[in-house]
Amino acid sequence: MIRFFATPQDVIAKSIKLNEEDSKHIRTLRLRPDEQFIVCDGNGTDYVCILGERTDGTLADIISKRGSHGEPTVVCKVYMAYSKGDRLDFAVQKSVELGVHEIILFESERCVAVPRDIPKKVARLQRIALETAKQSGRGIIPAVSSGGSLNSVIDDAVKNSALSMFFYECENHLHIKNVLEEHFSPVSEHDDHTAKTISLITGPEGGFEPHEAESAKSKGILTVSLGTRVLRSETAPVAALAAIMYQTGNL
Amino acid sequence: MIRFFATPQDVIAKSIKLNEEDSKHIRTLRLRPDEQFIVCDGNGTDYVCILGERTDGTLADIISKRGSHGEPTVVCKVYMAYSKGDRLDFAVQKSVELGVHEIILFESERCVAVPRDIPKKVARLQRIALETAKQSGRGIIPAVSSGGSLNSVIDDAVKNSALSMFFYECENHLHIKNVLEEHFSPVSEHDDHTAKTISLITGPEGGFEPHEAESAKSKGILTVSLGTRVLRSETAPVAALAAIMYQTGNL
Repeated sequence: MIRFFATPQDVIAKSIKLNEEDSKHIRTLRLRPDEQFIVCDGNGTDYVCILGERTDGTLADIISKRGSHGEPTVVCKVYMAYSKGDRLDFAVQKSVELGVHEIILFESERCVAVPRDIPKKVARLQRIALETAKQSGRGIIPAVSSGGSLNSVIDDAVKNSALSMFFYECENHLHIKNVLEEHFSPVSEHDDHTAKTISLITGPEGGFEPHEAESAKSKGILTVSLGTRVLRSETAPVAALAAIMYQTGNL
Repeated sequence: MIRFFATPQDVIAKSIKLNEEDSKHIRTLRLRPDEQFIVCDGNGTDYVCILGERTDGTLADIISKRGSHGEPTVVCKVYMAYSKGDRLDFAVQKSVELGVHEIILFESERCVAVPRDIPKKVARLQRIALETAKQSGRGIIPAVSSGGSLNSVIDDAVKNSALSMFFYECENHLHIKNVLEEHFSPVSEHDDHTAKTISLITGPEGGFEPHEAESAKSKGILTVSLGTRVLRSETAPVAALAAIMYQTGNL
């Protein structure tokens, strides 16, 4: 079923107000009067609707509501270093398909392509996140933002998550499987929200400098390997997310 | 270290003959006489070399040899349906990074973009597989080929692998985690090569027709879910491979 996003505030009694762009789009679809579509409130609730047009400006009449099926049980924040060309487009699209909760961009030492106009880049990636959230049936639109320097995102990750992993190609001992099996063992599992928040930090094309890895370690973040093959900068977050979703029964 | 591929036949006594393209490439690099590079024989062995030029046409002098680090312990064959645009480029690149052994393309009912010139498409994707194998440090160059119809690839998968999974978006019960945990449990593991060969069959943009899934099932192939989110055709094989590499300790 075709899918739109609104906000909880757009749900007005038994109908939902669509934004201008979606209103235009839905009119071009020439839906039959009984044809159903989904409007998600972006907060984990899906409304099954049919087309209606009321004087209050709402366009979607609610038939039933249910929890969105597309939300994983873990909250994954991915901190991605700026990379060249369309690598971030790809990484954002695949991360949203795989269930990421939030994407934060940052600058690290070996970044070769920090965009001149960061707000424009963020807006473009947010647009990709929205389109992908519609297509993949997500219950939220993962937020994309700029997090500044590596040091700031390290601090943010430590503060807001139960587990933070810094993917480092020179790490030979600690593999993602060791970390996740330990963290999600029945003994260590907690019930609060923070315990379910996992942060992933991935580098640019050239990887991280040793002192950047040391800096992460010194704040208590684990440096983790994604195996013996060299993964491209846009592949690392995708592989790591797939592994987390697999381990937690969300794939 | 920069990496080239040769064949076991190119290894002549203590040096290796590079092909014309790589010979040209290595000359442009202006390596120092003691600068090391890797020549992989495409069969799981890496040779650490320095530049040498001999009258027999070889270019690389062997310093030492070792097993390639980049090969996983499982043999994964991915059967991918033809898709539009650059989706297959992406799927091939990421699959090689994640350790695929072989990629076989096929045509299914909902394919919207079967290339007119299949050999040309295969050659292009084989080129991507080669470049990615170099970059990611693989010990083989995964072969790309055309497998014909869905029925042919189903037969091929059944015949040549211990486990075949047909990824089907209408499958709600059997998840990839159930299948892999069962297959790789200590009790069910075998030592022969076939037991380690896993085949994955993934569909085109529009997914598979129900009768195609039935056909796979009737031949004993499992229809498997990749979760509640809708994955794009190029994302499904990548997510499935990441899950397999994770489960088998190859990520």
